[in-house]
Amino acid sequence: MRILLVNPNTTATMTATAADSARRVANAGTEIVAVTSSMGPVSIEGYYDEAFAVPGMLIEIAKGEKEGAEAAIIACFDDTGLDAARALADIPVIGICEAAVAATAFIAQRFTIVTTMERSRLPLEHLVHRYGMSGRCKVRAADIPVLSLEDPASNARERLRAEITLALKEDKAEAIVLGCAGMADLTAELRAEFGVPVVDGVAAAVKQAEALVALGLSTAKQGAYATPVTKPYKGLLEKFAPQELKAS
Amino acid sequence: MRILLVNPNTTATMTATAADSARRVANAGTEIVAVTSSMGPVSIEGYYDEAFAVPGMLIEIAKGEKEGAEAAIIACFDDTGLDAARALADIPVIGICEAAVAATAFIAQRFTIVTTMERSRLPLEHLVHRYGMSGRCKVRAADIPVLSLEDPASNARERLRAEITLALKEDKAEAIVLGCAGMADLTAELRAEFGVPVVDGVAAAVKQAEALVALGLSTAKQGAYATPVTKPYKGLLEKFAPQELKAS
Amino acid sequence: MRILLVNPNTTATMTATAADSARRVANAGTEIVAVTSSMGPVSIEGYYDEAFAVPGMLIEIAKGEKEGAEAAIIACFDDTGLDAARALADIPVIGICEAAVAATAFIAQRFTIVTTMERSRLPLEHLVHRYGMSGRCKVRAADIPVLSLEDPASNARERLRAEITLALKEDKAEAIVLGCAGMADLTAELRAEFGVPVVDGVAAAVKQAEALVALGLSTAKQGAYATPVTKPYKGLLEKFAPQELKAS
Amino acid sequence: MRILLVNPNTTATMTATAADSARRVANAGTEIVAVTSSMGPVSIEGYYDEAFAVPGMLIEIAKGEKEGAEAAIIACFDDTGLDAARALADIPVIGICEAAVAATAFIAQRFTIVTTMERSRLPLEHLVHRYGMSGRCKVRAADIPVLSLEDPASNARERLRAEITLALKEDKAEAIVLGCAGMADLTAELRAEFGVPVVDGVAAAVKQAEALVALGLSTAKQGAYATPVTKPYKGLLEKFAPQELKAS
Amino acid sequence: MRILLVNPNTTATMTATAADSARRVANAGTEIVAVTSSMGPVSIEGYYDEAFAVPGMLIEIAKGEKEGAEAAIIACFDDTGLDAARALADIPVIGICEAAVAATAFIAQRFTIVTTMERSRLPLEHLVHRYGMSGRCKVRAADIPVLSLEDPASNARERLRAEITLALKEDKAEAIVLGCAGMADLTAELRAEFGVPVVDGVAAAVKQAEALVALGLSTAKQGAYATPVTKPYKGLLEKFAPQELKAS
Amino acid sequence: MRILLVNPNTTATMTATAADSARRVANAGTEIVAVTSSMGPVSIEGYYDEAFAVPGMLIEIAKGEKEGAEAAIIACFDDTGLDAARALADIPVIGICEAAVAATAFIAQRFTIVTTMERSRLPLEHLVHRYGMSGRCKVRAADIPVLSLEDPASNARERLRAEITLALKEDKAEAIVLGCAGMADLTAELRAEFGVPVVDGVAAAVKQAEALVALGLSTAKQGAYATPVTKPYKGLLEKFAPQELKAS
Repeated sequence: MRILLVNPNTTATMTATAADSARRVANAGTEIVAVTSSMGPVSIEGYYDEAFAVPGMLIEIAKGEKEGAEAAIIACFDDTGLDAARALADIPVIGICEAAVAATAFIAQRFTIVTTMERSRLPLEHLVHRYGMSGRCKVRAADIPVLSLEDPASNARERLRAEITLALKEDKAEAIVLGCAGMADLTAELRAEFGVPVVDGVAAAVKQAEALVALGLSTAKQGAYATPVTKPYKGLLEKFAPQELKAS
Repeated sequence: MRILLVNPNTTATMTATAADSARRVANAGTEIVAVTSSMGPVSIEGYYDEAFAVPGMLIEIAKGEKEGAEAAIIACFDDTGLDAARALADIPVIGICEAAVAATAFIAQRFTIVTTMERSRLPLEHLVHRYGMSGRCKVRAADIPVLSLEDPASNARERLRAEITLALKEDKAEAIVLGCAGMADLTAELRAEFGVPVVDGVAAAVKQAEALVALGLSTAKQGAYATPVTKPYKGLLEKFAPQELKAS
Repeated sequence: MRILLVNPNTTATMTATAADSARRVANAGTEIVAVTSSMGPVSIEGYYDEAFAVPGMLIEIAKGEKEGAEAAIIACFDDTGLDAARALADIPVIGICEAAVAATAFIAQRFTIVTTMERSRLPLEHLVHRYGMSGRCKVRAADIPVLSLEDPASNARERLRAEITLALKEDKAEAIVLGCAGMADLTAELRAEFGVPVVDGVAAAVKQAEALVALGLSTAKQGAYATPVTKPYKGLLEKFAPQELKAS
Repeated sequence: MRILLVNPNTTATMTATAADSARRVANAGTEIVAVTSSMGPVSIEGYYDEAFAVPGMLIEIAKGEKEGAEAAIIACFDDTGLDAARALADIPVIGICEAAVAATAFIAQRFTIVTTMERSRLPLEHLVHRYGMSGRCKVRAADIPVLSLEDPASNARERLRAEITLALKEDKAEAIVLGCAGMADLTAELRAEFGVPVVDGVAAAVKQAEALVALGLSTAKQGAYATPVTKPYKGLLEKFAPQELKAS
Repeated sequence: MRILLVNPNTTATMTATAADSARRVANAGTEIVAVTSSMGPVSIEGYYDEAFAVPGMLIEIAKGEKEGAEAAIIACFDDTGLDAARALADIPVIGICEAAVAATAFIAQRFTIVTTMERSRLPLEHLVHRYGMSGRCKVRAADIPVLSLEDPASNARERLRAEITLALKEDKAEAIVLGCAGMADLTAELRAEFGVPVVDGVAAAVKQAEALVALGLSTAKQGAYATPVTKPYKGLLEKFAPQELKAS
Repeated sequence: MRILLVNPNTTATMTATAADSARRVANAGTEIVAVTSSMGPVSIEGYYDEAFAVPGMLIEIAKGEKEGAEAAIIACFDDTGLDAARALADIPVIGICEAAVAATAFIAQRFTIVTTMERSRLPLEHLVHRYGMSGRCKVRAADIPVLSLEDPASNARERLRAEITLALKEDKAEAIVLGCAGMADLTAELRAEFGVPVVDGVAAAVKQAEALVALGLSTAKQGAYATPVTKPYKGLLEKFAPQELKAS
């Protein structure tokens, strides 16, 4: 089974972190094809970056599907462009926030996502609401830039720990969800340290992707995820017309 | 990996149907241990039967865990006794309604569960609500006794088809969830017939169980699922005191 | 009028406390028949105990109804097995959480339940949600074992008071609901002490039971509370088949 | 025990209908004091009438309380002025919609209110929402003027029956609530005719009022129902200043 | 364009404050006709005052409409009698809470209303819920009497500032709504002081009124806002019968 | 006052239709600057087109703001890219769905949006939910391609009328919202034909934009709409880095 893992930002080191996490949990027969978007922001921090991470991500989805991927994962915790990707692709597409929240709901009644920047908190609350978990899942921001997670000199990991401590105490969280693909490598040590389930969305998405493929399930095409209508696209984005992207 | 599949009713032929469905999607290295409850109702139709299906199910969970199961599935669409099982066990426990709804949410925005008896419709609506999907998932009953699904002379399958047809038209369902473990063998033919994703909870639960084990996740024990308090149980149920059941 | 009060745990002293509270508010012509379950846990603390308190409670409901009770009360704040009891019985069945919440809603816009163990907090939140009051009623746990309420040497009552104080201040609760049948005897002194309405579920349930009988109302039998289907039950629970229990 | 029943419209025959219903279910020791408002609309059909039914109703509440009533009932299904009455009075005040909905919730999971005029449908939906039952209770209007219920020549009762029939079929209602005080005398015959629980709010409110008095509970005065602040009222409404009304 | 601004309390100085705020933002061609109710409470603090502010307000609405107003504003933050006014009038009627909340929703995802008295907090929460913003907008009370806002010797403004500070910190409010018409004159200085958007409902309502008139939109008359039914009103309120008020 | 109206699709005739509607209701002193996106899809039908309409729209917002626009309107009923635009701009940005829904909420309790394609129905339901109106506003699709609205030979307008008829009957809609910028020119004739308020989002947005400017209000910048972080963007989208777009 081949699963495509798209990092929708353009920082290859984050792709590597996510790919490591993915391969650690994948089945023996699963190949993880990890790609970095070729265009757009180096990190996704809020609504504006998110908008410009979508085109590059969709190119990779279209290309990966043509090259035989059986499922695709969008490896940014904003589930960037998930709806558009589901409309475009015939294979199932999984967001890592969606997968993390779904997995955690099987093991805890109340849990908390700890994410990076304050400006991502409300967008994640919207996702959680849409995934049906707003009554069970809170969102906190540790107020750290995304790329600082990769900088050993920053205090990002201390701040993350401090926010997890607050979540356990004030939210009575029974489990913690790591709210950024760049935190995936911390999962094991945080579990050991805090003694509660700690969930990484990348790993959760891999298992969910394998599950949907094994179940023979893919995106329903009657409704909001119907295949995009053939039509001209103009200017700089001409080649993104759905019929072009699928054919390219 | 060993996964326990407990049929909480006492009809072994339904266990066999569920086990077949489970084995069809399990990973190569997964062993499905399917057991039938030794006590209680022959089918679970409504709140009363549900209450008496719990003790026998919990015996099997306790026994299966001691014998090395790494996850357990409760193979009745009411997710019978799921909360009690999660409190009792240290391994993850999955309900088939919960798993079916979670899987379908990755591939459709609106979907419908078609179950058997009208008296099960509202209990399933409560589950759907609790799983966060009441805005996206409707519940319909085909008004058929559970065991009639196994009787070729009954019109149960025609009624099921008729209700699926209504769900697609009136609910604008993009996908269908089969609302009874006894329907698992119909999945493939209904997909072919209706041309939409059709989801069987038993199969979905197997993949979810494998996923949680691979992710190293189990039930959070701080909160509502804390291990039951040691205490005397009296009378006929004496041996079900948590310390007894765990030790037996 | 004869009203059955079933204590679903097997501790007779708690039955006595509840019966006292019930008789204090019953109409002159109302006979309170208080019974203790003959099987299962000595106290109900969380989901696991709850499951095993149901069979013994249902025996008493069936027996009480045959002996002429016109309504039944389940005297545990988890409203243990309420749905199964409503399906079984033709007389109305009342849960003490349900009755307390309904009564308080007539006199306060915001109120708080203070219960015993933390592990009961979320189950009560689910009940409150189902009774339509999640926007108006919070739940707090004083973190005390149920039976410690009967132990003068414990600090249970101090902890209860401390939690009520927090509810008034932090929740801006206008009234307090006592979240355990074993607290019924404290109602009067807590009202005097805190100067706000304090509601005991046992007393509230008695008045609600009398009300339904006087109104000539009983459980609707078209829908989720339809009389259980006649069918075999196996093994240890054989005699609980609905047709057996009704006939025994 | 003395219970005040205020008809907030100015039609004495409707007061008589409500009083009959009240007395039929009251305890032996309960005196029902039924009064008709001395000012305002002859029937309450929609928001405008409702606003002008409040002053006359509040006069009667203040007067009744001074004369020894231990609880008060507002006998219009819009629960006209209920919040203002609760702020004014020290005794508990009950609305008949609130009481009917609360009683029905003990015996049915899904039910429907059938009211008179279409223009009252949304106001009742707002009440149902506030009482926490919008997920369980629908509202239908039979499209009949309130006073036509008293006119044997009208087809009001046929229309009411037709709407009940639709509620049972389309809403899968398990019970029916009569959505107007003027329907109280129909309760028994509609129960017999339709074979489901039929609930009259006046009767339900009497039992709820008796219950609160027996429980020693009255409106919480810390919060939205705090006693009105002493202050001047001007012009035509001068005498309604709270300190005046209480003293008059 | 002529817009009627009704102060539903009987304190003319508050009308002046509101009128100033209204005129500051009105279009060049808009005439603000500001009137003070001729009857009822001098300030509106809670449910009881609210009930008695409605008749005098409705007189002014009826009169203003006859004299050519094209829209009406109710200048009390409780949106006193808004539903009744919409039923009565053919011109659009705007509440200042409703207008403030709607305007703020265009510029902030999370915001807080700071009002005067604690007893007004829950009524405003009900309004916010009805306007669809309960997930985005909190309500706080500074615990100050309404008329103290006009008293330079009181500490009302300090308390207001203290509560705004808490809203920004604890609620993470992105904007502040002033929850009383009597605070309108503070808008500019609070914006400067706190550096976040501060919204005055009177000003917001003026722009909303102008908008509806320009768009050619008025209250829908099919449904809950249908024109009141012609019928007798009795006693002191005789002249308020809808046909009388419209004709007077 | 200068207001920017951006058509996020690349069809200039639709811009003209929207601009006409905008100018018809604008204040005398308001200049409407209408622009067509220079890149992306010729019409926006579903999630995929929406994603590619955002970059071109944001270019125009940045450019318009630099050239002195005081507010901006996104003239597609999906409110395409609204969150990103609010983060980018310092001036207020208005979506036409958001404006239409907000205006209609002032005049009707229940209303229905009639949009074009079925695949847009659920995205609009998500918007309506987010704007707090899911309990009051339904969404229907007339199942017509967006550009067919401009084709006199199509039956698009007949289908639109048929769907409005259903909305009035089945949804009991009190008012209708036209769910596509391309329907703006039909407003007047549909009002006349159906006799209920019919709301065009473009016109509503103009008045809302004028209102916010007059009120001195713009997007709160503390929270999810904080100004985008300066950072590199790569590849084809390099020039869209926020610091580039703002400076260009």
